[in-house]
Amino acid sequence: MSQTIDIAVVGASDEVGKTLVELFGERDFPVGNLFLLGDPESAGESLPFRGKNLRVRDVADFDFSQVSLVFFVAGEALTRSYAPRAEAAGCSLLDVTGALDAQRAPSAVPEANGLAIEALNLPVQLSSPSPVAIALSVVLAPLRQLVELQRVTVSACLAVSSRGREGVSELARQTTELLNLRPLEPRLFDRQIAFNLLAQVEACDAHGHGSLEKRLAGELKQLLDLPRLAVSSTFIQAPVFFGDSLSVSIIAEEPLDMAAVRQILGTAPGVELLEDDYPTATGDAVGQDVVYVGRVRGGLDDPHELNLWIASDNVRKGAALNVLQLAELLIKHYP
Amino acid sequence: MSQTIDIAVVGASDEVGKTLVELFGERDFPVGNLFLLGDPESAGESLPFRGKNLRVRDVADFDFSQVSLVFFVAGEALTRSYAPRAEAAGCSLLDVTGALDAQRAPSAVPEANGLAIEALNLPVQLSSPSPVAIALSVVLAPLRQLVELQRVTVSACLAVSSRGREGVSELARQTTELLNLRPLEPRLFDRQIAFNLLAQVEACDAHGHGSLEKRLAGELKQLLDLPRLAVSSTFIQAPVFFGDSLSVSIIAEEPLDMAAVRQILGTAPGVELLEDDYPTATGDAVGQDVVYVGRVRGGLDDPHELNLWIASDNVRKGAALNVLQLAELLIKHYP
Repeated sequence: MSQTIDIAVVGASDEVGKTLVELFGERDFPVGNLFLLGDPESAGESLPFRGKNLRVRDVADFDFSQVSLVFFVAGEALTRSYAPRAEAAGCSLLDVTGALDAQRAPSAVPEANGLAIEALNLPVQLSSPSPVAIALSVVLAPLRQLVELQRVTVSACLAVSSRGREGVSELARQTTELLNLRPLEPRLFDRQIAFNLLAQVEACDAHGHGSLEKRLAGELKQLLDLPRLAVSSTFIQAPVFFGDSLSVSIIAEEPLDMAAVRQILGTAPGVELLEDDYPTATGDAVGQDVVYVGRVRGGLDDPHELNLWIASDNVRKGAALNVLQLAELLIKHYP
Repeated sequence: MSQTIDIAVVGASDEVGKTLVELFGERDFPVGNLFLLGDPESAGESLPFRGKNLRVRDVADFDFSQVSLVFFVAGEALTRSYAPRAEAAGCSLLDVTGALDAQRAPSAVPEANGLAIEALNLPVQLSSPSPVAIALSVVLAPLRQLVELQRVTVSACLAVSSRGREGVSELARQTTELLNLRPLEPRLFDRQIAFNLLAQVEACDAHGHGSLEKRLAGELKQLLDLPRLAVSSTFIQAPVFFGDSLSVSIIAEEPLDMAAVRQILGTAPGVELLEDDYPTATGDAVGQDVVYVGRVRGGLDDPHELNLWIASDNVRKGAALNVLQLAELLIKHYP
């Protein structure tokens, strides 16, 4: 790659795209020409970049040979439609929508499997995994130097912003209606989300598993390079605007030395450990680059057990920041 | 015991006490004389019973020899102070405050270890365990006929009503302040609870465990008569007014037949199974006597795994109803 890189962002007008364009500036990413792309409805919107307002263009009219790196940041359908064109034009592809084939575009989190990325040849295709997989892998990856991880059980409480702007406004609207004693009319969610917890975030298969739950199991095994890791998760929709909260229980092959666990998490890249305390999504994680960890404790009945509470920004490290860190790794190793 | 029973309720003016007095009427409990007792601050309040308003009296002035059954329903300190007097007067003691000695007053849930209660001699002392232990034991007890339970991992999202009336008004106040863009001033909780999740509900010991978490492990082992059961829990304060939500993962000694699990849960006493669906605290559990279960599914990676979502009324089955059901068992077997 050259000193600056010509870039396209597909799905730019959504929350992740906006954050990504902000992060280009914040982190001094060597952007050459930047093309913001979207579906016909979003074409015409604009985002600030380097002191100017950059218009979002209709992706259908774009010639991908003008760029060498394409970010797909919103809409599985957009990614499926335009990834083949970007690939044919010789671009590297970085995807947060989960629409690329997992074999062709492996999941990547710099703190977890960054070394594996360095071994790839350009052009590459990489998937930024789900926000929950990113937060978990950043915290669990450094623990592999201490013990063999056998089982991970996670209750993942997702913010409504995981459903985009509609999720945020639906929680605000329902809350206001309830506080004003007006009848509740759920729209985006199929029931009351205000002052309530919903035990699934999407349709489930015949065995009762959600696709995010299945995807998490596959992503974690791959990110941690632990194909035999048993992963169990419940995705919960919480009445929280921004930031995911994860209640995590881990079983290791060997008994755990809690002082060593704290030592590792206290110095792990991308991790902020709160000793004898716990982070919250709203109070700590939102707007931050690091993944917060607290309530680090062993098992009451089992010395192989480790329990954690994780809070992380689902839009930032959960998507935009992670995919930009992947781009930073690429340009560092292929200057 | 005689055809009707003279009863005292200590801590009557709190939420659980009010619900208990309502349930006396609803369930036609053979109450003879009823004495509502409390600390000096609550003395003078009154509760409706059999068409009259019954005054709460100062417990310090009460002669426990007037009754044969005493319910302790609010305040560990009240229980500690007055249980010895009630015991000396020959009363049976039913406690929801967790203040009685676990050896003298074993945890009891009719659906889980009701048979053990029948073997006791009057006067008895029984503890109604924590709402989370009650909900879990009602659901897990019938599964013991199918498999040996090895490990239970639970993320327990507690309603603010677990902190009494102050918890409810604190969530309402914080929510209103935030929606009106006024600065937030947490009072009862040490940080923002509105639109947030707090990963602990009380102070933790030097190893990071909360006392409710430790209590749950002991209660579940005893209720299920499984002394070697490994119990791991995280108690979470959720921005929900009423009703607890539990995300539960179970490991059994043997592989699980999911059809058999559904069959058992579908007919278990005190359990309402939602097939291919999930209950919510607010939408289903509040005001109901049964414990709701949904999202029943096996493991993705482990045939010994069972995952569940439980919603239950923390004030009703979680306290007042359970302790009244214990009283019903007592009068049934010692008429």
